[in-house]
Amino acid sequence: MKGTNRALRLAQRPDARIDDSTFELVEEPLPELVDGEYLVRNVYLSVDPTQRVWIREEESYLPPVGIGDVMRAGAIGEVVESRNPAFPAGSVVTGLLGWQEFARCGGSDGLGGNVIPPGMSMRQTMGVLGATGITAYFGMLEVGRPQAGETVVVSGAAGATGSVAAQIAKIQGCRVVGIAGSDDKCDWLTGECGLDAAINYKTEDIGARLDELCPDGIDVFFDNVGGATLDAVLARIAVGARVALCGAISAYNEAGLPAPIYFYANLVIKRASMQGFLLLDYLERFPEAVIQLATWEAEGRITWRDQIVEGLENAPRALNMLFSGENTGKLLVQVAPDPTS
Amino acid sequence: MKGTNRALRLAQRPDARIDDSTFELVEEPLPELVDGEYLVRNVYLSVDPTQRVWIREEESYLPPVGIGDVMRAGAIGEVVESRNPAFPAGSVVTGLLGWQEFARCGGSDGLGGNVIPPGMSMRQTMGVLGATGITAYFGMLEVGRPQAGETVVVSGAAGATGSVAAQIAKIQGCRVVGIAGSDDKCDWLTGECGLDAAINYKTEDIGARLDELCPDGIDVFFDNVGGATLDAVLARIAVGARVALCGAISAYNEAGLPAPIYFYANLVIKRASMQGFLLLDYLERFPEAVIQLATWEAEGRITWRDQIVEGLENAPRALNMLFSGENTGKLLVQVAPDPTS
Repeated sequence: MKGTNRALRLAQRPDARIDDSTFELVEEPLPELVDGEYLVRNVYLSVDPTQRVWIREEESYLPPVGIGDVMRAGAIGEVVESRNPAFPAGSVVTGLLGWQEFARCGGSDGLGGNVIPPGMSMRQTMGVLGATGITAYFGMLEVGRPQAGETVVVSGAAGATGSVAAQIAKIQGCRVVGIAGSDDKCDWLTGECGLDAAINYKTEDIGARLDELCPDGIDVFFDNVGGATLDAVLARIAVGARVALCGAISAYNEAGLPAPIYFYANLVIKRASMQGFLLLDYLERFPEAVIQLATWEAEGRITWRDQIVEGLENAPRALNMLFSGENTGKLLVQVAPDPTS
Repeated sequence: MKGTNRALRLAQRPDARIDDSTFELVEEPLPELVDGEYLVRNVYLSVDPTQRVWIREEESYLPPVGIGDVMRAGAIGEVVESRNPAFPAGSVVTGLLGWQEFARCGGSDGLGGNVIPPGMSMRQTMGVLGATGITAYFGMLEVGRPQAGETVVVSGAAGATGSVAAQIAKIQGCRVVGIAGSDDKCDWLTGECGLDAAINYKTEDIGARLDELCPDGIDVFFDNVGGATLDAVLARIAVGARVALCGAISAYNEAGLPAPIYFYANLVIKRASMQGFLLLDYLERFPEAVIQLATWEAEGRITWRDQIVEGLENAPRALNMLFSGENTGKLLVQVAPDPTS
C-alpha cells in the first residue's frame, strides 16, 4: 500500500510529566508487506497510566520503550492490507499497535492483534470490554475477593478501571465508596454507577470522610493511586482486609522515590493482605472476563464512559490528562473514522 | 495459700522506650481461691516485642493493658494450689499469666492456662515449641509458602521467631539469608542453624548485600522489623514474591508514625503479596505445629537458643533488650526454680 504513516516515537525520557520534547511525531512511508504480515489502520489509540511507567528507564514488568521506538500503546483498528489469511482485510483487530496511524503486524517485530468478533463497537471493545475493564474484573474478583455485605473502597474510581471495579463490587452485594477528583465525577459515581458514596479527594479530607463512611473499617480496597491515599485506607482496614494494588498513579511521574506509606504495620494487626497484580497474568482467561462484562453491560448492571481526544499529535497531552484527573472513564485518541459507530 | 505475690503493674504509657517509670513493682497478698480457680507459681515469664504494642494507648489486636493492670505476658509455671480438677497441683501450665510471681487462674478475669504434657521441659515449651516457634511455623508455611529452590530472607533472624522461621525454610529446601544485628548472631545462623548466608545490618548495607546474595530476587520475606529493612527487600522481590509480615519491631517504640516504606509499588510490578498474620488466628492448629516442631527438633533439623534473665524486677530491662538486639533466641525472665531442668 502506498502512503504515509505518522507515528509518535520516544525522543527522550521525562523526569516528571511528559512534555513536548518527550515524543517526536515522525512521518514515514508505509511498509511493503511480506508474507504473514498485515497492515492495520488504527482508529482509537489507548491512553493509560501504565504508559508513563513504560517510558521510564528502569525495567518494569515490560522492557522500557526504547529511544526512537514507536510509543507502546493499546489500539484498535481495521486491517487495510493483508498477506496473512488469519487477518483478512476488513477485520477489526486490537493489540499493542502503538501510537501511530498504521501498524505493520504479524512480522518478526512481534506486533500483532486479536480479531474482534463482529457486533462489538470499537469503543466498547476499548472501554468496558477492553484492557481496563478486564483489569477491573480480575483485580476485584480474584485479588479483592469482595463478599456480600462488605465495605469496598476504590480509588481512581471515575477512571476506566476504577469505575468498572467499583460496579463489580456493587454487583457482589457490597457497600462501595469511590474516591475521585471532582464533584462531577462523584455525582456520576453515586448516580449512574450506583455507588453508595463518593469522596472528592481534591476538596475533602479522605481520612475524615472514610471515618464517617466506613465506621467498621474497610474490607476491600482497590487502589489505583498509592501514596497518601493508600495510607489513609491502610489506617482504616478491617480484620482480614484485602488491598488489591492495581497501580500507583501518584508515583508514575516521580523520578525519585514515590510518596511513602506509613501504616503497613496495620496489615499485621488486621491480618490483612496487600497484593499487586497485572493484567498480563490473566491473558488466558480474557474470554471469561469479556463474556461476563458484556453480560453485565447488556443487563444494565455496569455503565461506562469514554472520552475521545482527536488527533495523533494530541496523544501525549491526553496521557497527561490522566495524571491531572481531567478524564472520566476510558480515554482514547481517535486517529481515523470509526467504521463501527 | 498464705504468702505474697509480686507483680509488675503498668504505671504509665511510655512515649519511646520503656523506663523505670513504666511499671510499678507491687507486693500484694496471695488471693483466696474460690471453686474453679487455681494458683500458678510462674517459673519463666516471656519477653516479646509485641508486649511493647500492648502498652500503647491505641487499640491493637488485643485491648491495651490498662493502667494499674498486671503486665500481660506469656508465662509458664506450676500449679501450687487448686480448686479446679482439670488443673491439679503439680500440673505445668502455660498461658497469658502475666509478669508476676503467682497467677490466679480459672476465675472470672479470664486468666487461664494450657496443661503441658509431661516430658517437655519448661524452656523447650517456651522456646521452640512456644508462641514464637508456632508463630514461625504458621507464618512461614501458611503465609510465606516457600517452595524448594526459592530464595528466602528473614529479618530478626537470630530472634526466637526468626531463627525458627529461617530453619523451617531450610527444611523446605530453600536458600535462606538471615538479617541480624551482630557477627556472633550471623555466625550462629550460618553455623549451627545452617543458613546459607547472614547479613549484619549494623555493619553492612542491607541492600548492597541482598544484591550480592539474591541476584535473582527474593521469593519469600519473613519480616519482623519493618521500615527500611522491609523497604530494602521490597525493592528486590522476585515475581510472585510473598512478604509475610510477622511484626515491625522498628516501629513499636515510636510514638508517632513509624519509618515509612517507599517500594510498595513493586508489589504491582512483581505481582507480589504482603500479608500480615497473628498467632491468634491459628489457635486451633497449635497441636499440629507443636508436633511438627518437636519432631524436627528431635531429628536435629531445628536448633534453638534461649537466654535467661533472673528476677521479676528485670523484666522491663529484658523487654528493652529485644529492641537493642541484645538477645539471641528466646528471651525469658526466671522468677522461680525450674522443676523441669
